[in-house]
This record gives sequence, structure tokens and C-alpha cells, in this order.
Amino acid sequence: MAVYTDVSFEDLEKLLTGYDIGMPRSFKGIAEGVENSNFHLQTDRGGYILTLYEKRVSTGDLPFFLELMEHLAKRGIACPQPVRSKAGNNWITLNGKPAALLTFLDGVSLRKPEVSHCIHAGGALAEMHAAGAGFKLSRQNSLSVAGWKKLAQDTQGKADSVQAGLAALIHATLNELEAWPQDLPAGIIHADLFPDNVLFMDGKISGLIDFYFACNDAFAYDIAVMLNAWCFEQDGAYNITKGKSFLSAYRQHRELTAEEAAALPILARGAALRFLLTRLYDWLNPDPAALVRPKDPRDYVKRLRFHRNVRNPSEYGL
Amino acid sequence: MAVYTDVSFEDLEKLLTGYDIGMPRSFKGIAEGVENSNFHLQTDRGGYILTLYEKRVSTGDLPFFLELMEHLAKRGIACPQPVRSKAGNNWITLNGKPAALLTFLDGVSLRKPEVSHCIHAGGALAEMHAAGAGFKLSRQNSLSVAGWKKLAQDTQGKADSVQAGLAALIHATLNELEAWPQDLPAGIIHADLFPDNVLFMDGKISGLIDFYFACNDAFAYDIAVMLNAWCFEQDGAYNITKGKSFLSAYRQHRELTAEEAAALPILARGAALRFLLTRLYDWLNPDPAALVRPKDPRDYVKRLRFHRNVRNPSEYGL
Repeated sequence: MAVYTDVSFEDLEKLLTGYDIGMPRSFKGIAEGVENSNFHLQTDRGGYILTLYEKRVSTGDLPFFLELMEHLAKRGIACPQPVRSKAGNNWITLNGKPAALLTFLDGVSLRKPEVSHCIHAGGALAEMHAAGAGFKLSRQNSLSVAGWKKLAQDTQGKADSVQAGLAALIHATLNELEAWPQDLPAGIIHADLFPDNVLFMDGKISGLIDFYFACNDAFAYDIAVMLNAWCFEQDGAYNITKGKSFLSAYRQHRELTAEEAAALPILARGAALRFLLTRLYDWLNPDPAALVRPKDPRDYVKRLRFHRNVRNPSEYGL
Repeated sequence: MAVYTDVSFEDLEKLLTGYDIGMPRSFKGIAEGVENSNFHLQTDRGGYILTLYEKRVSTGDLPFFLELMEHLAKRGIACPQPVRSKAGNNWITLNGKPAALLTFLDGVSLRKPEVSHCIHAGGALAEMHAAGAGFKLSRQNSLSVAGWKKLAQDTQGKADSVQAGLAALIHATLNELEAWPQDLPAGIIHADLFPDNVLFMDGKISGLIDFYFACNDAFAYDIAVMLNAWCFEQDGAYNITKGKSFLSAYRQHRELTAEEAAALPILARGAALRFLLTRLYDWLNPDPAALVRPKDPRDYVKRLRFHRNVRNPSEYGL
């Protein structure tokens, strides 16, 4: 089984005595999720995902993530729902790891989203931001400026082995980010809404998944993450048609404030740096037990260089 | 995506224009199969497995494997069925690899089969042996004595780093196997019918999978493989109750000849050596792109030592 933590059918069978979800029909480890071990379970009542939370998800954060998915679903956002055990728990311990059973959502994630998909994604992000209102738990963004400084230190010595000049680029960017905007409109953000985490069916969004970086932060930072993840082409070029489509779909639900619009270039730089740094760290420190090859950090070097040349938010299509 | 060869949904979508199997509902890489890349596809018409054949499966053997599954299914054996493309092909090329779409079978594989499962497995093996009759293609067993000699040579230098005395044990066993039996009753064998490759549902077998070691060889060698794979406990002890149950279930379909019975100990030694050697090779030559951790060869050292002490087939429960 190609997952960090192995779960046999016998382990599952024992676990299922504590749940009321029917008889198992199939059970397979799935090759997805850099952070956790995931299994697809089909019972005679439906499909489920069993997730075992590995090193990067702390048990203390689980109530935030799981209750957030419940909160959002009650407000109309299609996202996996934790199944409560007969004892009423939304997470349990399995093979030494915290684990949760979640409902399975149909849909496929796209490798190369097109303009029409960017439009749907922009709308979905705005709807999620609105739906997060009133959620009673909160969680700091552990991967914001302070977290990036730590990652920059940890990768400093070897960054140039990946690309000449990379350490200096990271250093210079971090200096610029000292002006990181505060007091922008904020609330619950996904913080990782890449195409991998948006499911489509028949051209429409059927669900948002993987809320394990969700936190309280500026809404516009979530927008900046998605400009990075959805609006660049494989060759590193920014596709302003996609950017414009994405942004105007978002703005049909919520108009950006002048401060948010003005902050977009620095937020985009920060978002590019965030994914550059985590990828760089994983690239330099490959986990031999990991079953997903580390992603190339250089894709985000290109994006960061693009953002550093942006002089005006209109260059994003705003 | 944690598989050797990546397939995006966009790749799949293009592929599906050549098939008549409905609209995709979900598509996920699955963490299964040491040899190949496997994806689970759900469409509105049913479940499928997309397999990309990697290094160990040669294109020339694909007609044998795929047509065998068709042959067996026509004779009542539940096994995956290759779906033919609109053009009538049972395999195609995808992202540079030979690939096939196969029907998905419900059921779960067991980590620790119990006596009742061994009984079902013995019966299923005999039924498969009978159903293989009349299959028009043939394939030599590339992992028989000659193949083991090659693996022994390739691992000789480092075998003792895994366990002291291992190189000598392998050498001594290979010498004994010079008396490898010829002319036993033969036909199509699975050659790898481990618990991973037998699906159960509600305590009964729902399917046999993974025919990519199938070949023409002695039926009793298939029995010997399964005595190794099904009838030892985790601590390395042979469970004669399981052995007896497995063998008598098989013999209810086909009685063993006196020659087969007499050959069982040497066949069991050969089968143990086969899995010892392939695991040893993979252990010593880990594939960085592999997403399944190599299995510990020492489990099969224990089994081999057990078989070398067997003086009479009755010790297996015959």
C-alpha cells in the first residue's frame, strides 16, 4: 500500500464497527495528498475517504478543519463532510495516527484549467469566503510571513543548488514583504485552493476539498494564491484573460476594496514565495516515505519574478 | 499523483473519446501494484481500472494476459475484463506506455486470511486451473529456475548485507533445485495468487486480479506459491490447519497425482526462493520512482528454511 501509514482491510473492519455507514465493497489506498494518507472506501451506502493525518497536520487543528467543513456545507458549499462515529466523534485514532472518515465527492480535478474553469473557481472562492462568516473557531495562518522566514532560513544554504541566485531572490523578496499589508478584509480562507483541490463535473464545480491549510487571513491573499495557481500557463506566462475572468467572477459576489486592489501585487509575491519555499524545502529534504514526488520549486521562481515586475494591479486583469 | 506515470484528467478525457464507457465521475491514482501505474475511474456506467504497464510487463506479453482474462471470464472465473476501444483494441498507448482499461471488481483483499478464506482460495485456484484449459496462447514462466539463477547472481554480492549467510542459503537451494520436477500436470497458472490478488466480499471470493505473472507451468507450482503466501503466520510459523484446508479444497476439484504430491516440498522451496529473490533484488535496488516500499525479503528466508526441513508432503497437511 503506497501511503505513509498502512491500513489493512482488517484494521478498517474493526474501525467500521464504530460507524454506521454500511458494508464495505472496496477499499484502496489512493495516490493523492502530499501531507496525509488517504484511502477510498466504497460501502453499499456510498463513497468515503479515510484520511490519516501525518506530520504536518496537528491534532489540535483537527476540530478547526473538520468543523469548518461542516460549517461550510451547512451554508451551501460542497465539501467533504466528516462522518461522526456512533460515539459522536468526528475524528479517531487509527494505527497511531489521528484519522477521519469523510464523505467522498464525485468530480475530477483538472491539470490545465481553461478560462471557463477560472470563472467557476473565482465564484466558488467568493462563495466560500462568504460562507465562512460566523464560524466560531479560528486558526492563525502558520504559513504567512513569519513561517516563510523560517523556511527561508532552513533552505538558505542549499537554495542556489536548485537555481543560481535563488537565495538572494528569496532574501530580497522577504525584505520587500516587511511591508505586508495588515487590516485587509479577512475571514476564513482556504489558502491552498489549487486546481487539485477543486472538483469539476460536466464543466461545473462539484466540490472543494483539502481544507488542511485553511485559516483566518486576508481574503485577498486567497485570491493571490489562486492567481498564482490558476492563471499561469505551463511555460510560466501569466494569462491575463484567465486572471480577468477569475477576478471578475469573484467580484460579482464581493467587490474588492481599494486597499485590497492596491495590495494585490505584494500579496501575489507573498503567495508565490509561500509555494516556492514549501516546494524548495520538500525538494531539498525529500521524505523517503513520501509517495508523491516533490514538485519543482522553479515553477514558482518564475511566478515570483513575474510578480516582482508588476507595477499596477491592472496587470493582473483587475 | 503517486504513480510511476502520470495521467491527467485531460489525458483521460482524450483517451475516453475512443471508448464507449460513459461520462467520467471520478479518476484517482491508486496506491497499488508494485509493477504498474493504476488509476481508478468511475463513470456513470460503472467502475474501471486504467493500468499503464511499466518496465516489468513487456508489450509482447499483453495479448497473453488480456486474452487470458477474457478466456477465464467466459469460463466463469470472476476477473477484470479488458474493455475494447471503439477501434476494437484491448490495449492502447498512453503517455508513452502500453495501457489497458479493465473492468473494476468489487471486493477487498485481506492482510491476514483465516482458515475459511484459505478454503475459498484453494477452490478458486483449482477452478482457475480448469478454466485455463483450451487457452490458445502460451507464455513461458520467466521467473522459474533459470530466472532465479540470474536473480541470484545479481544479488549475490550484497545478499549477506540483508542477513548473514543469505548468499550461501540461496546458493545451496539453487543447487538442490537442479532436481526441479519436469512433466508434472501443467497448464495456465496465476503464479502470484497472493492474498493481495484475491478479492473477498461477504466472506466469499468476488474476484481474482493481477494476472501479469500468469504463464504455462505446473499446476502444483501454483499450489506451492499459495502455501507460501496463505498458510504462514506473521511470525513465520506454518499453519498446518490452513495448509490442510487449502489443499483439500483444491483437491475437491482436482486430485493431485502421486508425482505432484511428492514434488510439493521442492516446489515450495522453489516458490519461496522466487519471492525471496525478487524481494531481495527490489530491496537492494530500490527504485526511487517506486511508490510502494520494497517488501522485506526476510519473510521468505524464514519460509525457505521451513521448507528445507520438510521431509514429507504430509507436513503441509496433504
